[in-house]
Amino acid sequence: MNAKEKTPETVPPDHAAVQWVSASLDSQHPADMADELEKLSLEEQLEYIREMDVEDASESITEMERHDRNALMSELPSEFAAEILQAMSPDDAADILKDLDTDVRSRIFRRLEREDAAEISDLLQFDPDSAGGVMNTEILALDQSMNARQAIALIRDRVEESEIPYYAYVVDGYRHLMGVLSLRDLLLSPGRMMLKDLLREQNLICVPFDADKEEVARLISRYNFLALPVVDHEQRLLGTVTVDDVIDIIQAGASEDMQSMVGAGADETVDSPWTYSLRMRLPWLILNVLNSAVSAFVVHLFEGTIAQMAILAALMPIVANQAGNTGQQSLAVMIRQLAMERFDRKKSWGAVLREGKIGLANGCIVGTLVFLGLLAWTHNTGLAAVMALALWADMIIGAVAGASIPLILKELGRDPAQASSIFLTTLTDSIGFFTFLGLAAVWLF
Amino acid sequence: MNAKEKTPETVPPDHAAVQWVSASLDSQHPADMADELEKLSLEEQLEYIREMDVEDASESITEMERHDRNALMSELPSEFAAEILQAMSPDDAADILKDLDTDVRSRIFRRLEREDAAEISDLLQFDPDSAGGVMNTEILALDQSMNARQAIALIRDRVEESEIPYYAYVVDGYRHLMGVLSLRDLLLSPGRMMLKDLLREQNLICVPFDADKEEVARLISRYNFLALPVVDHEQRLLGTVTVDDVIDIIQAGASEDMQSMVGAGADETVDSPWTYSLRMRLPWLILNVLNSAVSAFVVHLFEGTIAQMAILAALMPIVANQAGNTGQQSLAVMIRQLAMERFDRKKSWGAVLREGKIGLANGCIVGTLVFLGLLAWTHNTGLAAVMALALWADMIIGAVAGASIPLILKELGRDPAQASSIFLTTLTDSIGFFTFLGLAAVWLF
Repeated sequence: MNAKEKTPETVPPDHAAVQWVSASLDSQHPADMADELEKLSLEEQLEYIREMDVEDASESITEMERHDRNALMSELPSEFAAEILQAMSPDDAADILKDLDTDVRSRIFRRLEREDAAEISDLLQFDPDSAGGVMNTEILALDQSMNARQAIALIRDRVEESEIPYYAYVVDGYRHLMGVLSLRDLLLSPGRMMLKDLLREQNLICVPFDADKEEVARLISRYNFLALPVVDHEQRLLGTVTVDDVIDIIQAGASEDMQSMVGAGADETVDSPWTYSLRMRLPWLILNVLNSAVSAFVVHLFEGTIAQMAILAALMPIVANQAGNTGQQSLAVMIRQLAMERFDRKKSWGAVLREGKIGLANGCIVGTLVFLGLLAWTHNTGLAAVMALALWADMIIGAVAGASIPLILKELGRDPAQASSIFLTTLTDSIGFFTFLGLAAVWLF
Repeated sequence: MNAKEKTPETVPPDHAAVQWVSASLDSQHPADMADELEKLSLEEQLEYIREMDVEDASESITEMERHDRNALMSELPSEFAAEILQAMSPDDAADILKDLDTDVRSRIFRRLEREDAAEISDLLQFDPDSAGGVMNTEILALDQSMNARQAIALIRDRVEESEIPYYAYVVDGYRHLMGVLSLRDLLLSPGRMMLKDLLREQNLICVPFDADKEEVARLISRYNFLALPVVDHEQRLLGTVTVDDVIDIIQAGASEDMQSMVGAGADETVDSPWTYSLRMRLPWLILNVLNSAVSAFVVHLFEGTIAQMAILAALMPIVANQAGNTGQQSLAVMIRQLAMERFDRKKSWGAVLREGKIGLANGCIVGTLVFLGLLAWTHNTGLAAVMALALWADMIIGAVAGASIPLILKELGRDPAQASSIFLTTLTDSIGFFTFLGLAAVWLF
């Protein structure tokens, strides 16, 4: 998506926060058009799209929800689909093509004009999770031998056909990125000064095309930039990632973390087909059963003890639950940390210690309360002590495990959130049951 | 924070993604300076800050982590603290003051110059979670009777002392917001045309000061704006929320959802003092014990059954766990939905149905697998059937409850995420234990 200085000009149809609605809704915003389209059946969508002009159609389709968009693009005549893609910025076109089935994709691809096809196919080479996979390629590159006045004139000339750029990128004759200037930098400079000379003293921040897109988001968010240039390994300028893309990356990352943590699909929404969600979640639920079987086996070992003292069966879920909750608190804080800050090994493992300390202290307090409560209820000091001790130990383990699991997954090169909550529960359940029932078997009989 | 067309000019010190680092690091970025400061002891910080010029000090302090910043600001001499606040944009100054203890705040406040004090104290009136609480007040308002050429000249004149604005806000003589123009709109217009006439046909989007800040974030993200104007109930222009603030709002919202869901503090990070985290989490852990006591009581009712058939104690956690996991998947998808889209009651309750369907189907599949597994292991058809049935029922309940809890909390006017995972577990545990042990008691004896 390309948001270069778009002016707020449309209104979401029925929004409480919006106070002032002009009478005319002729020029609807693409995001609103997309919403309207999604409410229609596929047949109606097709009819509707064919009546729109290509520009509007391409903007609306860009904003549509993925599953709806794929269905629509697959049904459009190839010729028209190609026209729509050509009207988009190449990175949006590549994103859409990437999602389509191979045969649909090549069918549409053949209809693209050669130049567009080449550009899109270049973009398709990049890993979608990398800077290259999310960058915009329509940027303003200025030769470093130009002077400030010429640069300003060039920007003014381009105003007719394109937005005013956030930044002008200064390159040498081989398109090596030499520096970045804002319009303000240019306006404040002596008109005859060469761009090259304006760049003195500048510390340039840019990312290679294979940098992780979430890393790009962190940099833009950390430094409050509007865009960040993307270069190849020879420092040649390839494109930029803009702040509106970063918002999408951050939102998608937050959904991914929260959902994959419990084994839901990373990109599921309430608009995804329910069968898609079913497919995404089922494998993790099956893994969860197998994991639960481990803790069930632990309990199974103590069936003799339980048969003699059935209250243990009532109390054991408290231990497991409490340690699980403690661990999830650590897990949540740690996953958010990894999402927002660049990974720093030393700091991260230091944070595990911090979580251990919190778990220990919370374990003491909660353990004591449970001890007193259980003593008052059962008048069985031994049982209350076993319960408190097991709770305390399992809460410390939960806290440390909750904080470590994402780090271990990260060190293994995997997604730090994926199924982390499921692994955590297996651990806190089995260890909690074992400690509690084990201590009970040894002390209470 | 104010990010109007900042130019990337500095480099994070040791970053892998950054390829090209200029030799000089003299002009460090405030975010990096803040990191450096946070590594020092409070005494060292104080020493360091006093040696910086006020401009640098104020930028670095703005970027510091909250707890560190509060400690530092409280220890600085009031005179110097006031100077630092005056060098910030008023909204940042207000944010920082808000966090300080009352006595420190009034001590510093007395040292502010009258005009700054008035502006900051106005900002302090706004709810920090509202548009007014996050807006910037340093904006360019142009009178509607100005013509395009005059407007451009004015912007050029201001370039010396301030950044080029994202948008120019057109107001009437009473500062009522009439419309928004981009620099491009101005450059493309006939120079003699009055701004008033350029606004024809425009649909303006703005928010009242009391709109929820997350709603502002959703609007900016949806329409790819760089800023959104904030007005009072008479449509008078008060300020704007910019895209860099929106990134912070989105990140903070994602942390808040993920962490408060399991009862950790909404604004905890690995940098928060561990005692702060302890205080934030303990009440929810205690609530969790009380909730677990409910499900323990359910098991307690069936102690007789368990004493006769202790394998039930081993299997019951599988039922609870599985339903809990199913519910958490629904919960995660629903909380993300509420975070990303404006709340639509009909759509949301429709999504609950969708989750119920997924839970039903997953329950059938997992139930069948568990039935077969348990049959193979125990050769007890009755037990396997009871287990499968309880699992299936509890998974449906988990899915529906997981999807409903955030909606119910929302309808009650509360945070949809807060402790939702804890409530969910109580429900899936108690109902799971009751269904499983109840069916077992009726059928197997």
